[in-house]
Amino acid sequence: MSSTGRVTLPIEQGMDDQLPGILSRLGADAVRNSDGTWLPEITSELGVKVYETYFPARGNQEFALAHLDARPRFYLMSPRIAAPADGALEIDIMRGYLALQVTPDMTDFTRWWEVIDRTTGDVVEVDGWSVSGDGPDTVVTIAAPEPFHVYTVNFLAWQVWDSTQMYNYTTNNWQNDPTRVREVGYDARHPEAWEFMQQSLRDWCAERPLVDVVRFTTFFYHFTLVFNDLAKEKFVDWFGYSASVSPLALDAFEEEYGYALRAEDFIDEGYYNSPFRNPGKTYRDWLDFQTRFVTSRVKALVDIVHDAGKEAMMFLGDTWMGTEPYGEHFAGIGMDAVVGSVGSGATCRMISDIPGAKYSEGRFLPYFFPDVFKEGGDPLGEANESWLCARRAIARKPLDRIGYGGYLSLAVKFPDFVARVEEICNEFRAIHELGQGQRPENAPIRVAIVNAWGSLRTWQTHMVAHALWYKQIYSYLGVIESLSGLPFEVEWMSFDDVRSGSLEGVDVVLNVGAANTAFSGGDEWLDADLVTALRRHVSLGGGFIGIGEPTAVSANGAFFQLSDVLGVDKEIGWSQSTNRYPVAHGEHFITADLREPADVGEGAGDIFGLDGAELLQLDGKSVDVAANSAGAGRAVYIAGLPYNADNTRLLHRAIYWAAGRDADFASHFNSTNPDVEVAVFPAAGKALVMNNSTEAASTVVAGRASGMRGEGEVVSHELELDPMESRWLDL
Amino acid sequence: MSSTGRVTLPIEQGMDDQLPGILSRLGADAVRNSDGTWLPEITSELGVKVYETYFPARGNQEFALAHLDARPRFYLMSPRIAAPADGALEIDIMRGYLALQVTPDMTDFTRWWEVIDRTTGDVVEVDGWSVSGDGPDTVVTIAAPEPFHVYTVNFLAWQVWDSTQMYNYTTNNWQNDPTRVREVGYDARHPEAWEFMQQSLRDWCAERPLVDVVRFTTFFYHFTLVFNDLAKEKFVDWFGYSASVSPLALDAFEEEYGYALRAEDFIDEGYYNSPFRNPGKTYRDWLDFQTRFVTSRVKALVDIVHDAGKEAMMFLGDTWMGTEPYGEHFAGIGMDAVVGSVGSGATCRMISDIPGAKYSEGRFLPYFFPDVFKEGGDPLGEANESWLCARRAIARKPLDRIGYGGYLSLAVKFPDFVARVEEICNEFRAIHELGQGQRPENAPIRVAIVNAWGSLRTWQTHMVAHALWYKQIYSYLGVIESLSGLPFEVEWMSFDDVRSGSLEGVDVVLNVGAANTAFSGGDEWLDADLVTALRRHVSLGGGFIGIGEPTAVSANGAFFQLSDVLGVDKEIGWSQSTNRYPVAHGEHFITADLREPADVGEGAGDIFGLDGAELLQLDGKSVDVAANSAGAGRAVYIAGLPYNADNTRLLHRAIYWAAGRDADFASHFNSTNPDVEVAVFPAAGKALVMNNSTEAASTVVAGRASGMRGEGEVVSHELELDPMESRWLDL
Repeated sequence: MSSTGRVTLPIEQGMDDQLPGILSRLGADAVRNSDGTWLPEITSELGVKVYETYFPARGNQEFALAHLDARPRFYLMSPRIAAPADGALEIDIMRGYLALQVTPDMTDFTRWWEVIDRTTGDVVEVDGWSVSGDGPDTVVTIAAPEPFHVYTVNFLAWQVWDSTQMYNYTTNNWQNDPTRVREVGYDARHPEAWEFMQQSLRDWCAERPLVDVVRFTTFFYHFTLVFNDLAKEKFVDWFGYSASVSPLALDAFEEEYGYALRAEDFIDEGYYNSPFRNPGKTYRDWLDFQTRFVTSRVKALVDIVHDAGKEAMMFLGDTWMGTEPYGEHFAGIGMDAVVGSVGSGATCRMISDIPGAKYSEGRFLPYFFPDVFKEGGDPLGEANESWLCARRAIARKPLDRIGYGGYLSLAVKFPDFVARVEEICNEFRAIHELGQGQRPENAPIRVAIVNAWGSLRTWQTHMVAHALWYKQIYSYLGVIESLSGLPFEVEWMSFDDVRSGSLEGVDVVLNVGAANTAFSGGDEWLDADLVTALRRHVSLGGGFIGIGEPTAVSANGAFFQLSDVLGVDKEIGWSQSTNRYPVAHGEHFITADLREPADVGEGAGDIFGLDGAELLQLDGKSVDVAANSAGAGRAVYIAGLPYNADNTRLLHRAIYWAAGRDADFASHFNSTNPDVEVAVFPAAGKALVMNNSTEAASTVVAGRASGMRGEGEVVSHELELDPMESRWLDL
Repeated sequence: MSSTGRVTLPIEQGMDDQLPGILSRLGADAVRNSDGTWLPEITSELGVKVYETYFPARGNQEFALAHLDARPRFYLMSPRIAAPADGALEIDIMRGYLALQVTPDMTDFTRWWEVIDRTTGDVVEVDGWSVSGDGPDTVVTIAAPEPFHVYTVNFLAWQVWDSTQMYNYTTNNWQNDPTRVREVGYDARHPEAWEFMQQSLRDWCAERPLVDVVRFTTFFYHFTLVFNDLAKEKFVDWFGYSASVSPLALDAFEEEYGYALRAEDFIDEGYYNSPFRNPGKTYRDWLDFQTRFVTSRVKALVDIVHDAGKEAMMFLGDTWMGTEPYGEHFAGIGMDAVVGSVGSGATCRMISDIPGAKYSEGRFLPYFFPDVFKEGGDPLGEANESWLCARRAIARKPLDRIGYGGYLSLAVKFPDFVARVEEICNEFRAIHELGQGQRPENAPIRVAIVNAWGSLRTWQTHMVAHALWYKQIYSYLGVIESLSGLPFEVEWMSFDDVRSGSLEGVDVVLNVGAANTAFSGGDEWLDADLVTALRRHVSLGGGFIGIGEPTAVSANGAFFQLSDVLGVDKEIGWSQSTNRYPVAHGEHFITADLREPADVGEGAGDIFGLDGAELLQLDGKSVDVAANSAGAGRAVYIAGLPYNADNTRLLHRAIYWAAGRDADFASHFNSTNPDVEVAVFPAAGKALVMNNSTEAASTVVAGRASGMRGEGEVVSHELELDPMESRWLDL
């Protein structure tokens, strides 16, 4: 087994003696710097591939400060302020924002700003308001507001501090380091900036013969990350495009699309087109417009890198807006590699499944930053947690490489951590070698997740900030987290795809999320074509699984528009007069492996069963899990599915049952112990058995050597696994 | 102190020896029979007022069976059934209904029935469907439905068994009693039935010289109470009018209103115009139409009673639809008395506050039925619970009389219970005597509850079935339950009233309930006039208290349309990108008496505070209680308010604070112990101090002998009270 390769380590200056030993121990074949560290001179002697971070849109502060008109902007909304009984209303638009990060852009403000009556939704005519002051003291005065109506100002603002560098600066207390400055960015749409970006990349490449890989961190437009007046995060949307605006871009958009966007198209009542909102036409147009611009300019930069004989690697995050790795323009860039932070199995698959890059790399957690690598920190625990989540996803679709980021000098102070990383690196390489570079076999069941975003947000649903926990998402994120390590082909499908007939060939459809979100679908379910497409799918023998508030929109006497298919609906107060007598169903294939009642997280609450549904788990009178037959097909309802082993098994079985394949489950290498999962490589004649828990585990795995589609004898394998162990089994 | 009067007891045959003793012991001055019992011959010798129940619309089964075309009807909806891929759809409309209670009325069904596509809301033309079979086997066939659309049939059906008599019959196992029949009703709109009703009442009165009070139980149309095919309750709406329909009535409506009602106007997508639905125009018209009809015919019956020299008493329940005691037509009836079941303080006030009756009587729980008066039953506990809830409401607005119902022969087998009832009767009489027949003083704070129903549903909000617990209502019912015993003048106001300026003079406005219900208001809050009327009220110094999901409808960037006033809003998924840093506020006047964190019941969840709001109680990151200032006024938010002593105190203080009267609280006879409440009668120079708990209680009460509006020295009274004790204090 190789003890070297597929691993990238961050290195830095001042560790020359230690570096060769550490690299060798972990089998690293590539090194990199990080934001705030520099490659040491010894790098060339290490005999490894060299990455260097590159910041095309903020790398040169001299240029940035000389071209403040090239700074990027964002659209922001003022606080909501009620008008008095009579007289003018003054709105201090910067209230709640940080002057170090944000300053209003007064250029042509009557054209770019908007004052809106939030009681009626009406726009206030431009001659009805005026602006006074500037910077943090900018005030908009509405001369004659409607008494007691609430108003806001949508304003364009300069980004006077790059959001990621600001985060790193404040997290690492760089205010105490006189060598650090607050970095300012520049916008690729600005003609001089764009010329500068290209030339400086050419120069940079020429000056660095040692560098093999240009690690773009990242490109032009930051996801929306705005801080409050106390320099704490105020608004974070990892998918937000409201920091990608500029008059130049808006003018270009108008010319191309034939209509002008309004400030409100970005502000969106203050929701800023959160991915939880069903995307409207103008926002979709803007995404398309910016994605074409960004990918074309990224391609130009990648071409420069290639001309210099180097590889281009993109960091999946930070100023990544407009790259849309699952969009139609990404593959055309010719990007060599994508690297991203692995916060979970789902984020791992989000990286490894990107179709348009030559190879993928996962940057594992914890990041070598002092917030974890400090006394009382638990880097070992974080490494284990991260690995256990990632391993099952890697087993399904391997990342090509793994790595770490941050300050190696911090990590080496934790020898237990380094020892564990060594094991992880070896385990990772074994998956590639023993699996013979192939993907493990999937069950013969095609799964589709339907929502408003479809494939554009493959493995990206329900996320607010990258891999962070939010109360309203964890019960749904668990679904993709579970799927990231389950043996199914999963595809993401938009409602439009469904209407266009994409369900053809799909076995089981999932609709997951809270009511009125883009992931559940909200008003989309008022469309008879969508509803009947799903009902037809099930009626003709297909499966449907709804989690949370699937197909939810109140209309025509139902809240779940496919309540008849799901066998459940939600009480929203209007049908309390209907008496209900829920009776728990006994044992069932779907719930057979639950060791205790499924944790449905926030659940959906107040779910009632309809005639004929099997209520597999009740919480008081509310249904947590139900199974139903509709026509020739089957449906399953689950109130919520936070990620854990039991819930993963619940979903695993639910998919088999909904697909009508429950009889095959026991012979498809599905471990009897939910803590243990199996990836089968029939061509290699091997199976990877993984104990996902930190306790020892016993299990039995049964299957045919020929795989799930093959024939022949079913052989049982009894196994005892150590905590967290993975073991390769000969079939 | 009188030991006699103001008490009604049910009596029955076979207890002649016991009756005088029991009546004397409890001080009863009136007796009655119940549904299923008859007054004994000894009644005339008891020296008490005599009530006898009277059933105008089902009292004579001979008539009923001879006039089956006079039976009342209801509008019912079939199950929701999906159409197949092709071909016809058959709907078994009686599935889920009980043939003993319901049979389809086939008369002119093409005119009165409706088949609806519940996927689109479209009505299927009458030539698109046909009916076959009859009774329990009635099938509607839709010849060419849209594939995979869901359909329902709205059908008119005969009520073949009176709903209340059915309930009594099944609860008391009368199927084992050969003397019992299943009673059928008759509709007062049927000309012969109406003639018969009048004449038979005249005859009945003439035949009963002993009877002083005709206890109508009740009149013509039952609240909606439909049973399922297992004879269990299927649909219960204590305010439902869907059992008040008939072709005669619908024709009369059309003639008067100039438009025809559709079946769907009653079916309402299957919600049957639940009081939780914002009432639409057609339903309001029907209520008005039937109320005028019912009250006019009730008046005719009451006139007959008066002509016979008797009093008319109405039971508030059962076939009470159309009487609307808080509507504009009730007072014109000339009803002598209203009697109702006291399930709580709120139901007590619902009876005692009716403006149009000469006197009120509360029928206390438990009802003397074998479901409670059996081995293992706890009639004493139920009596105490009922009395503790009712007493504080009675202290605010006394019922004129109290009483019991059911089988006295059952109750006398529980001597502890009878002893307790004796105490209760004495305590009740004392309130009248020592309070000198006056109402206690209210705080100088006018409170208005605003919702879609306004005064028509005074003390009747959030109720599904009379005084029963439902998961989705108890957190809101607690508000009116608390108010029923608090020293405030409370009025109910519709949104239309608010728009018409009725807030003038109101100090504190309450909006209480779950989003999208008529009690919170739903779409009503899209109206700028409504929103600004409230904002103006607070801005100019008024108070506003929102409980649950007040002013909730998603629009223009807010969920609570008065979020700026309340200082809180609810996260519905779209603004998760906004970071929140809730900080709990320290001590506050509003929460000063909470002995543990307020139990907000189902709460509202995911409530976040806005700038400036004081977050008085947090549950994780979600706000349970908040206080906010807006202009010259104040607002309070509470996530839910199930009834208990601490929550009552929380609301009590919240109202004082919102009214800006917090400085007066301590000198307004408000007990320091939340278990203890006080009713002050300044004119009588007395205060009634009530220990609402079943434990002993210490408290201090401070106030001026001249009352809350008076002047002079504030005197403190320290008290030690026994469990449940009430004590009269000389001021």
